[in-house]
Amino acid sequence: MTRGLCAAVGALLVVSAPALAGAESSRLPLMPWPAQVEAGEGALAISPTLAWWADGPASPIVERAVERLAGRLALATGVPVRAQRAASRDAATLRLRWASDPRWLTLEADESYQLEVTASAALLQAAGEAGVLRGLATLAQLVVPGGEGFGLATGRIHDHPRFAWRGLMIDTARHFVPMPALLRELDAMEAVKLNVLHLHLSDAEGFRLESRVHPKLQGEGSDGQFYTQAEVRQLVAAAADRGIRVVPELDMPAHTCSWLVGYPQLGSRPGPFRLGFDPAAAGAALDPSRDEVYAFVDALVGEMTGLFPDRFFHMGGDEVVGDEWQQNPKIRAFMEANGIVDRRALQAHFSRRVSAILAKHGRTTMGWDEVLGDGLLQDAVLQSWRSSKMTARATAAGHRVVVSAGYYLDWLMPAVYHYALDPADPRGVGISEQEVKALASTPFAAYLGEERVMDQAASLSAAQEALVLGAEAALWTEMVSPEMVDGRLWPRTAAIAERFWSSKETRDPESMLRRMVGVSRQLEALSLRHEEDRRLMLARLAPGAEASALALGDAVAPSRYYSRLLRRAMAGPAAMAVPMNRLADAATPDSAQGLRFAQDVRDLIAARERSGPRLLRVRRQLVAWRDVSPALAVSAERQPLLREALPVAADLATLADAGLRALDAWERGTPLAAESLGGALALAEQHAKAAESTSTSLVESLQPPPPAEVVLTAAPPIRDLLREASGR
Amino acid sequence: MTRGLCAAVGALLVVSAPALAGAESSRLPLMPWPAQVEAGEGALAISPTLAWWADGPASPIVERAVERLAGRLALATGVPVRAQRAASRDAATLRLRWASDPRWLTLEADESYQLEVTASAALLQAAGEAGVLRGLATLAQLVVPGGEGFGLATGRIHDHPRFAWRGLMIDTARHFVPMPALLRELDAMEAVKLNVLHLHLSDAEGFRLESRVHPKLQGEGSDGQFYTQAEVRQLVAAAADRGIRVVPELDMPAHTCSWLVGYPQLGSRPGPFRLGFDPAAAGAALDPSRDEVYAFVDALVGEMTGLFPDRFFHMGGDEVVGDEWQQNPKIRAFMEANGIVDRRALQAHFSRRVSAILAKHGRTTMGWDEVLGDGLLQDAVLQSWRSSKMTARATAAGHRVVVSAGYYLDWLMPAVYHYALDPADPRGVGISEQEVKALASTPFAAYLGEERVMDQAASLSAAQEALVLGAEAALWTEMVSPEMVDGRLWPRTAAIAERFWSSKETRDPESMLRRMVGVSRQLEALSLRHEEDRRLMLARLAPGAEASALALGDAVAPSRYYSRLLRRAMAGPAAMAVPMNRLADAATPDSAQGLRFAQDVRDLIAARERSGPRLLRVRRQLVAWRDVSPALAVSAERQPLLREALPVAADLATLADAGLRALDAWERGTPLAAESLGGALALAEQHAKAAESTSTSLVESLQPPPPAEVVLTAAPPIRDLLREASGR
Repeated sequence: MTRGLCAAVGALLVVSAPALAGAESSRLPLMPWPAQVEAGEGALAISPTLAWWADGPASPIVERAVERLAGRLALATGVPVRAQRAASRDAATLRLRWASDPRWLTLEADESYQLEVTASAALLQAAGEAGVLRGLATLAQLVVPGGEGFGLATGRIHDHPRFAWRGLMIDTARHFVPMPALLRELDAMEAVKLNVLHLHLSDAEGFRLESRVHPKLQGEGSDGQFYTQAEVRQLVAAAADRGIRVVPELDMPAHTCSWLVGYPQLGSRPGPFRLGFDPAAAGAALDPSRDEVYAFVDALVGEMTGLFPDRFFHMGGDEVVGDEWQQNPKIRAFMEANGIVDRRALQAHFSRRVSAILAKHGRTTMGWDEVLGDGLLQDAVLQSWRSSKMTARATAAGHRVVVSAGYYLDWLMPAVYHYALDPADPRGVGISEQEVKALASTPFAAYLGEERVMDQAASLSAAQEALVLGAEAALWTEMVSPEMVDGRLWPRTAAIAERFWSSKETRDPESMLRRMVGVSRQLEALSLRHEEDRRLMLARLAPGAEASALALGDAVAPSRYYSRLLRRAMAGPAAMAVPMNRLADAATPDSAQGLRFAQDVRDLIAARERSGPRLLRVRRQLVAWRDVSPALAVSAERQPLLREALPVAADLATLADAGLRALDAWERGTPLAAESLGGALALAEQHAKAAESTSTSLVESLQPPPPAEVVLTAAPPIRDLLREASGR
Repeated sequence: MTRGLCAAVGALLVVSAPALAGAESSRLPLMPWPAQVEAGEGALAISPTLAWWADGPASPIVERAVERLAGRLALATGVPVRAQRAASRDAATLRLRWASDPRWLTLEADESYQLEVTASAALLQAAGEAGVLRGLATLAQLVVPGGEGFGLATGRIHDHPRFAWRGLMIDTARHFVPMPALLRELDAMEAVKLNVLHLHLSDAEGFRLESRVHPKLQGEGSDGQFYTQAEVRQLVAAAADRGIRVVPELDMPAHTCSWLVGYPQLGSRPGPFRLGFDPAAAGAALDPSRDEVYAFVDALVGEMTGLFPDRFFHMGGDEVVGDEWQQNPKIRAFMEANGIVDRRALQAHFSRRVSAILAKHGRTTMGWDEVLGDGLLQDAVLQSWRSSKMTARATAAGHRVVVSAGYYLDWLMPAVYHYALDPADPRGVGISEQEVKALASTPFAAYLGEERVMDQAASLSAAQEALVLGAEAALWTEMVSPEMVDGRLWPRTAAIAERFWSSKETRDPESMLRRMVGVSRQLEALSLRHEEDRRLMLARLAPGAEASALALGDAVAPSRYYSRLLRRAMAGPAAMAVPMNRLADAATPDSAQGLRFAQDVRDLIAARERSGPRLLRVRRQLVAWRDVSPALAVSAERQPLLREALPVAADLATLADAGLRALDAWERGTPLAAESLGGALALAEQHAKAAESTSTSLVESLQPPPPAEVVLTAAPPIRDLLREASGR
């Protein structure tokens, strides 16, 4: 079908170049980077009328997607672009060709596409609607300056995803995520070609879904913040429009405190139960020995499959402690009667029965990697999370796997960390055996085991690798309030989306970071609030010194892995309830301004550039950082929340001041006497080390936090500048 | 009712001080400033539970308003505030007392309230729900740093509006304003106590309202962008929740081209008619001689009163040229037969008949000041706009008046301009007789007349002043695309809202500007997009030099009055269709950063401050401005839209450089030799003059524009700095 058109188009094409390399490719903020890109010269001008021609079956999906494209182009350019059907193919500047794909909105949907942009038209061909959507997302990223304003970069793109399952999991239970936020995230997901929204809908803190069959689930099991069924329908429809499947997760048998508030009879111990984070009640779990529990689940699943049409249904299954099972004589008796030897076997029993219920309702079971166990239906999909090697273990058992190990956004790692991890690599993420031992006498011991331990020797056979369906970035929201959601997701998730879509070989972090900064702005134009919310959070921290707070925010990232959460969890519910309105909450793991500074310093040094706009930018940034300290000190007299940040601001000022002296020396081309830096170089080295660490050590996470629970991400480039200028 | 409670509260109150003066009052970002403020000491801590107690009739309005308050407090503080009914009055931190007011949501509603905030509770008393809403809006602005984070400033406030009609008119016809934007504006309006949203729903560019009775109105009379009836219902309901009345305007008999596209038989000349701006078709008008026209209007009004419950209905009536009437023999015959002597009398005939239709449907007529004429129903409300004196003229004729003369937001005047105008002052806004003469041979002549001419001698009697119901800020959208709406409205409209609500004597521009900067941030937290959209628009103009574009944006404002629109209108439809994606479109009349700089310079000079954070801020801003030029020059090589801005950036750099030298001298305490400034002082004087001009001269508006159609608002403070440092 497509070959004839391609040949015809070939003649029109201004194809100029082989695949874009290095610096050039960074200019086009395409993310995920496509499988093949041949850049042309010039651009297709963007005008107010987007005349389009459809050579495919009638499709409201495509029609609405073209309207969204028009809106995206308008936002990216200020040209009031509106979609309009062209009178003929020749009159169209956007020509689409696709066929009906019966696999639409399934795991098997064909998402490949070919895009050809010439100076006169853009041609997009795809096997089905999914490919059209992905191609249009690429097209929206091709906006470049040119002509009398803006155009679409010409060229030829052949593209297809590496993984069919490219998901984002959002925990809506720990903190409720308001519906407008979820709808925004769908827009962002579409832009970066993610195709599964996995919603973690229940946990100890709340049951976030309206059930009419068991109305006490949300009625007593939430603080009133839950999604109504009408809202779920709206969300699922908006997701479908974007080629995004919605997979619901009802986590069981543990993490069910919110169920037990209204239905204590389902529990493994007598109630009452109460909502909220409580380490003492973390063992609460459904009673796997009673038929009533399965009848309850059956009715619930039956209701929910009416809301969530996707074939997959996530039953959770993680972190079952099992103490309550052991302590309940009836459960012990049940185990004995049925030859169930231990907690794991009992969970396997539970998983099998729930899995059968799901199958009865036409759903394929999905579960966290703990669900792996004897007799689980072979078609169940496991989500590896405890360590990368669980990917190997689950695929070895013949299960399909979705990988989340290493893609936890709540670890607050920088984008480069996740970007470097390959979903199909079973090594790399996990903790050490020493750590497990060291924590044996802590309350965490119940959650630690050999499954957490990193296995550098693990490997996948080709058959196993074929069972890796894809991966999911996951945002657990213990420490994510509504105003932080966008900032904790974006732009990092765009980099992860590239890891899930693009070839294994697309892995230059430099190129990724440059493009990610551009994508961040594209997402802002789509109404994503990551940048705006960060600005507002920083500004309100520093009355009278808002600009200084913003500058400080560009220089720091929240401290990483579990260092913020673990200490709070240890301190109990009150510590968990502390408002998230501090510097570390406002700070982002990847400040766009901070990344630009780092790139500028890198480019300056690499090109031995001793003047010009780049040097001016670096100087201006350093001046801004040098000056934050006095202004914040004055402001902190009024705002106590700011006080913890003053030592950070003081260190930043010291580093920036040294950086400016280094820059002066660099500009003059004369080396800087190292001794003139005083302790600044040592301070820079020390902060840079902390800022560059992506350690996943729980033991380290339990150490006293750095001031204000942030790391100085401005330190590594300043250190480089100091080293360079002082000849070290 | 309220006296007893007041006495009881008095004992609790930590009242410390007389009314706040000058600098102190600027700290509390209250806007509009209340009638009486007595500040206390300390604050009522903001905690996650907003326990409230209602001593008033059951009211979903109040209930939802308290929920919105909780949301606003959460956004302002990061504390996850949620509203919860308290078990007892004593357990409540927010205690509300009100009675049922049958005048709710009418012009007569009582909006007064008393607010008492102590360290333990906030007490709000009002005669009716409207007062509760206004008091809660004040409460939301009382957030201050304190305690362990944030609190509500203690004190006592007695407040009531000066005018009962405090409106905002939005033209949804010239550019369609998407529904999400209108819903955002309602949130902002509530925050600053505006209570009328006047929607201009039809004009030559489009009929923006779904009619089922006359479906070709929006079907053929729009580009598909209109509000469905369901959307209107949603908007009206959201407005009602906020105590905001929605007044629809269907502009007739002129400005009706969009009606005539689908219904040419209603016109005064034969069709066909086409949509859009076309000076040649500006005379198009309904035929006032035919009963069919009135029957059409009758059916339409009957349908629309079902959507818009407000008692007032705006029939437009502005800018009737009348040529087509004179040229139509049938209309001339009709006039002769009925003793109608001229165009004005014919419009009066039309207005009378439409007014009677409106009365039949239970609606009070509202119209632009042209509607003033013989025999118009006495209860019709006129909206003065052509000049301030039309307020005098209409009230002299016994009509109630809503004032818009001087409150046109599309003039792009700075907030201080509008703030200085008193709605009840019939002098001051208008053009000169000379201008009318000078333009006699231009196409504008038809729209100019003595009604436009400023009358410095006009005055209002007390009886006339009593007829001034209030005023409306008005945003005409010929040059406002969807992404510009918030920026063209906010924060300026907050200052205007203060003019409409607060006492005549509240008029210190310094205090207003300081508070407006704070209010701007409050509005951002409410999801208003003025700041974010400005940033995005500036950034996309300057690929690779985004920070410099933002810095330039802080230093400029779009050129004022009709200087941008008039030249485009003269050049015809193609010029009007040029995308609004340039510097002048992105720039705001009141840049927060620019205002802060001006304040800092003013404070520095006034306090003879030669060091400290303020001086550092001024220096940092000047450095940023000095450095914009080279970066933008590089970027403009890629983005042609940026080129026109380079001369502006160059002048800004010259001024900032001189400003830095002046600041050095100021810091040292030694005078700067004036000659060392070269031409910089003269350049500063010249730019400052342009930046400080709020001339309303049409003749000047027709002069060639300044580069990039902007004025350098950074120039006046830099000029002051240069003058001060050089002892001039």
